[in-house]
Amino acid sequence: MRILLANPNMTRAMTDSMALLATAAVPPGTEVIARTAPRGFPYISSLAEAQIAGAICLEMLAEAPPVDAAIIAAFGDPGLVAARELFDFPVVGMAEAAILTAVQLGGRFAIVTFTPAMTPWYMASVAALGMGARCLGVITPDDRQAVQVGDVAHTRRAALRDLALGVAEQGAEVIIFGGAPLAGLAQDLVDDVPAILVDPIKAAVRQAYALAGQGARPKSRLARPLAKHSTGLAPALARRIARED
Amino acid sequence: MRILLANPNMTRAMTDSMALLATAAVPPGTEVIARTAPRGFPYISSLAEAQIAGAICLEMLAEAPPVDAAIIAAFGDPGLVAARELFDFPVVGMAEAAILTAVQLGGRFAIVTFTPAMTPWYMASVAALGMGARCLGVITPDDRQAVQVGDVAHTRRAALRDLALGVAEQGAEVIIFGGAPLAGLAQDLVDDVPAILVDPIKAAVRQAYALAGQGARPKSRLARPLAKHSTGLAPALARRIARED
Amino acid sequence: MRILLANPNMTRAMTDSMALLATAAVPPGTEVIARTAPRGFPYISSLAEAQIAGAICLEMLAEAPPVDAAIIAAFGDPGLVAARELFDFPVVGMAEAAILTAVQLGGRFAIVTFTPAMTPWYMASVAALGMGARCLGVITPDDRQAVQVGDVAHTRRAALRDLALGVAEQGAEVIIFGGAPLAGLAQDLVDDVPAILVDPIKAAVRQAYALAGQGARPKSRLARPLAKHSTGLAPALARRIARED
Amino acid sequence: MRILLANPNMTRAMTDSMALLATAAVPPGTEVIARTAPRGFPYISSLAEAQIAGAICLEMLAEAPPVDAAIIAAFGDPGLVAARELFDFPVVGMAEAAILTAVQLGGRFAIVTFTPAMTPWYMASVAALGMGARCLGVITPDDRQAVQVGDVAHTRRAALRDLALGVAEQGAEVIIFGGAPLAGLAQDLVDDVPAILVDPIKAAVRQAYALAGQGARPKSRLARPLAKHSTGLAPALARRIARED
Amino acid sequence: MRILLANPNMTRAMTDSMALLATAAVPPGTEVIARTAPRGFPYISSLAEAQIAGAICLEMLAEAPPVDAAIIAAFGDPGLVAARELFDFPVVGMAEAAILTAVQLGGRFAIVTFTPAMTPWYMASVAALGMGARCLGVITPDDRQAVQVGDVAHTRRAALRDLALGVAEQGAEVIIFGGAPLAGLAQDLVDDVPAILVDPIKAAVRQAYALAGQGARPKSRLARPLAKHSTGLAPALARRIARED
Amino acid sequence: MRILLANPNMTRAMTDSMALLATAAVPPGTEVIARTAPRGFPYISSLAEAQIAGAICLEMLAEAPPVDAAIIAAFGDPGLVAARELFDFPVVGMAEAAILTAVQLGGRFAIVTFTPAMTPWYMASVAALGMGARCLGVITPDDRQAVQVGDVAHTRRAALRDLALGVAEQGAEVIIFGGAPLAGLAQDLVDDVPAILVDPIKAAVRQAYALAGQGARPKSRLARPLAKHSTGLAPALARRIARED
Repeated sequence: MRILLANPNMTRAMTDSMALLATAAVPPGTEVIARTAPRGFPYISSLAEAQIAGAICLEMLAEAPPVDAAIIAAFGDPGLVAARELFDFPVVGMAEAAILTAVQLGGRFAIVTFTPAMTPWYMASVAALGMGARCLGVITPDDRQAVQVGDVAHTRRAALRDLALGVAEQGAEVIIFGGAPLAGLAQDLVDDVPAILVDPIKAAVRQAYALAGQGARPKSRLARPLAKHSTGLAPALARRIARED
Repeated sequence: MRILLANPNMTRAMTDSMALLATAAVPPGTEVIARTAPRGFPYISSLAEAQIAGAICLEMLAEAPPVDAAIIAAFGDPGLVAARELFDFPVVGMAEAAILTAVQLGGRFAIVTFTPAMTPWYMASVAALGMGARCLGVITPDDRQAVQVGDVAHTRRAALRDLALGVAEQGAEVIIFGGAPLAGLAQDLVDDVPAILVDPIKAAVRQAYALAGQGARPKSRLARPLAKHSTGLAPALARRIARED
Repeated sequence: MRILLANPNMTRAMTDSMALLATAAVPPGTEVIARTAPRGFPYISSLAEAQIAGAICLEMLAEAPPVDAAIIAAFGDPGLVAARELFDFPVVGMAEAAILTAVQLGGRFAIVTFTPAMTPWYMASVAALGMGARCLGVITPDDRQAVQVGDVAHTRRAALRDLALGVAEQGAEVIIFGGAPLAGLAQDLVDDVPAILVDPIKAAVRQAYALAGQGARPKSRLARPLAKHSTGLAPALARRIARED
Repeated sequence: MRILLANPNMTRAMTDSMALLATAAVPPGTEVIARTAPRGFPYISSLAEAQIAGAICLEMLAEAPPVDAAIIAAFGDPGLVAARELFDFPVVGMAEAAILTAVQLGGRFAIVTFTPAMTPWYMASVAALGMGARCLGVITPDDRQAVQVGDVAHTRRAALRDLALGVAEQGAEVIIFGGAPLAGLAQDLVDDVPAILVDPIKAAVRQAYALAGQGARPKSRLARPLAKHSTGLAPALARRIARED
Repeated sequence: MRILLANPNMTRAMTDSMALLATAAVPPGTEVIARTAPRGFPYISSLAEAQIAGAICLEMLAEAPPVDAAIIAAFGDPGLVAARELFDFPVVGMAEAAILTAVQLGGRFAIVTFTPAMTPWYMASVAALGMGARCLGVITPDDRQAVQVGDVAHTRRAALRDLALGVAEQGAEVIIFGGAPLAGLAQDLVDDVPAILVDPIKAAVRQAYALAGQGARPKSRLARPLAKHSTGLAPALARRIARED
Repeated sequence: MRILLANPNMTRAMTDSMALLATAAVPPGTEVIARTAPRGFPYISSLAEAQIAGAICLEMLAEAPPVDAAIIAAFGDPGLVAARELFDFPVVGMAEAAILTAVQLGGRFAIVTFTPAMTPWYMASVAALGMGARCLGVITPDDRQAVQVGDVAHTRRAALRDLALGVAEQGAEVIIFGGAPLAGLAQDLVDDVPAILVDPIKAAVRQAYALAGQGARPKSRLARPLAKHSTGLAPALARRIARED
């Protein structure tokens, strides 16, 4: 089985660390193929950036070798609904996978991340799934300044742990550490927080494995868009939309 | 006052007819500046196409001359939320404007359009506004084949009128004729259907006029994304995202 | 074009200041006709008072000269749904117009007003539109005592600004200053609060202009109540209900 | 115990038959005091009429002798929320009581009534309680013409039974016969429809009995509106609002 | 009339005090028949315990003498939906009855109880009724330790009063004291809290009286499960499920 | 890895066929341990039966050997929430897993099953997840008679295929064949229905694999119920509840 991990951010180091975690979480014989966005942003942190990166992500999926499932590896899931319509393999979103994992593990959940700049984008993922009533909120430090995302899991570790402790006290049975830069933090804090901790990368790759090989997407499905001519798109994406592949 | 009408579709004739209707609906002294998508699709009809066209639309807005408000002139509102985050003038979506007009005119509304291919995309607009309980549905002919969108308001006039009559009987007090190719149909059928009929172009340009000059968007607003470096984007859009303009 | 501004409160000075703001916000050639409630309350501040004032407001609309649209000029919109059913011109509610303006300007909004006595009534407007998930709440000073509504925008200016600042920090992208006595405050505080500020009077008159001339309300519409005999009502209202006009 | 049955309609015969049913449904020693609206409409059938009748109903409650609870005896509950705010005894709505009875008797319910003119008003009651997901709809004959409400339970008996049968087949476990003119029909059809049938009069008077004597409404309650001066209201209502009683 | 009060907890003293309160709240001639769970838990305080106790409660209802209505006398309503499906008399839940009483008495309500361990279970009752938007939350002391439930209404009286005062200040018009051990507290605090206070026992028995004798549950109803063979169940319950009674 | 498949129905043949399908869907080295309910019902088909079987299912989980995850193998998920609270391994529900799989594969889904008797129970699963807006309904043959569940996938194959075809035409992008007796039907009909077909067994075992090994459930988690003494329960379940294991 081959799973595509498409990082819509341009930061290669982030892709590498996610791929490492993902590979460790799938059964032997499952290959994780990682791709980094060739253009766009070092790190997406707004709905506007997600609109652009989502379109780039469709290109990445169109240009990839044949796979059994794909992951859009940015919490916030840029391009997710579009990708599902367009491709004939299952597509998993990192935020959606984490949230659906969380609701299967406990009653109410919270999302902890490193900057309030993410809050509107992450809340949009919660709302899109209709999980507002199960979610205690996106919990972040107050600081709105730009952060060095690369090492934020280390530099803000204590603050993030305290936020997780606080929201567990308020009733969150499950806590998601949201955002690619927090990959691995759930594992790191497992003994420190009296709640169930979810790592979105792990959640996403496990969902990709779960969906691959079931729920076949027949080309005949009525919800598949009709073939369409386009202008000025990346060639692979244009071919996909024209149903020439 | 200057209002940008950005058509995310590539069909210039459609832009022209929408601009004509829009100009007729604003007070003297208000200028409607129309732009047609330079790349993308002749006519967007899926969520996948909307993801791509939404990103193109952000470029169109970034490249436009200074305006007081902008309209994303495709029912389904590609890029709407992203545009609001990014620009310092109000941005109106054609579907959103039509729906918010409808709920101010009566109790329950329906959307009538010419092909079931649009249904998932249009329902997504209804759901995004939380108006599912007010909406009797997207009503379309059964035929799933590609249509010549250019003259569909004429070729399918009788069928669309009958659909509108039917849904009025079922309790729709207001009916939106959705999709740019149906521009003008509401006016055309006003004596034939015992309901209030909404034309999305007219609704959108009136909302653009309404929003321009109120609800100033201060550059200091906390919800404005931080300046961000990008790679490979259209120059005007990159400058906008970098806050260099 | 003629727009009726019907103030369901009895305070003439409030009507005058609202009419001034409204006139300034419409294009030349649009006339704002203002009316003050002939009976009822100096200033409505409960759901009970709104039930009564809403019925009085129907009389005011029935007695008015022919207009192209009407505004029910009390935040909370007494009689709005009833008026829409009864009259053949569009009717705008001040709270509804402000809320629908807010959701077109940003993601989440809050309503700031001067007394907690308003909270249940204003939240009812939010709930009636199904916008609970977009609204951070009605934010008020703690003080429950009766206030001199006439000059509250001045006497409580600092407190209201601080409340607006606080809720902007908590994630409100748009802030509505609710209640006729706060007319003009949005303009006054535009440089002090890092959020988009909405003035309900301006929002309402712009929506009235937007709705007039589109969405014609045919007398044949099925949702129009049947003619009905009544007893003891104001003569103009009775004639309207009997469809004798 | 004394329960006020306030009929916001002017039809005395309807009041009498409702009072008879209500008296039969309360324990001995409970007195039902019936009042008929002194002005307004023979039979309310729209939201506009309900706005007016709701204000009249507040007068009726203010003018009544001391009671332990009151019923607003029109399906649709004109003035209900306002009355609860204003008076210090519990107030029951006929539609609300029937719906809350229905949800305690089974899973999904439907409302059957005699004319589609009622649908928007009755659906508003369902929506106000947030029970849309439990309700299969308001089921009516197609005929929109005015009906002689007085004897509709007899003249349309077969049609109403067939509608009830049909919606039971579709999954309604509980069926409410809505509207004062259908009082007694639930009892009449109990052997004909394979579902649980609810009579709103009976439901309302039983809820009034249930609420009286529990949930005391202290005058000190914070949600009670402040005393307010008014102009031109019925004297008893003005005194109530001024807290002079 | 005979009303069964089935306490799914094993604590007989709790049953006795509830039966006393219930008997005082019904009209003369209404008999309250009390039963205590023969197995299970001294006091249910989790969803897991409610799953088990709910099944035991079905046995208790099957084994009871003929009644006109039954109360499941644990806040949280273990087995309520199942019981309604199975039995031909109305079944009332203590939490559901209290919540539906609260929403008939005022706008927004809160539930005050003695330990945060109850919060998830009680919130599930609110959510099951779709009353999340009306509910300000379950308000409890912080202390998570096991409590002596028997006398908690006395030992924690001051703390519970202060919680009620606080949530009334925050806008709760109605406050439910949740949990059988708080029976009687609403009466005790009526002069201390500026809100409407609801006692669940009283609410439940009044609802049982209200439902008995209306909404007859015909054996022919389509929602009644088909007769079913079972193995290893308590004999009376097995007979009930097999429709042998 | 060891996954427990607990069939709350007593039909061993059903367990065997589910275990076969499950084993085929997990990676080598993953063991599926199947258990059949020792008491209860041949086949659960109501909410009442689910209440009882859910409690039995907790016993089955308590008595099982150590596992990494468990599946409650009845569509409708009896005892799911309770099991999650009680056990320290992840617990998967067949309906919940199928629904969460469906929403990751497309926009709107439907559930097709063989008898309308299941509708209320299956709709309860949809509602519990808040997925009502995504679900087109539970689609079944009209026939309410008891069916031989053992071979229903064969005897009703054509009817079920036609129902699936019909709901795909109405807009269902994903179709779940609900109920253990339909195991395998999704695979069987994959070429006949123009939609994505989900098999709940496969969905459940894949989710169990996905959840096992992530989202560790620390014994310290605050949402874990306190140790509790019980009377008359199955010994293993009593020990679990007493935290003696």
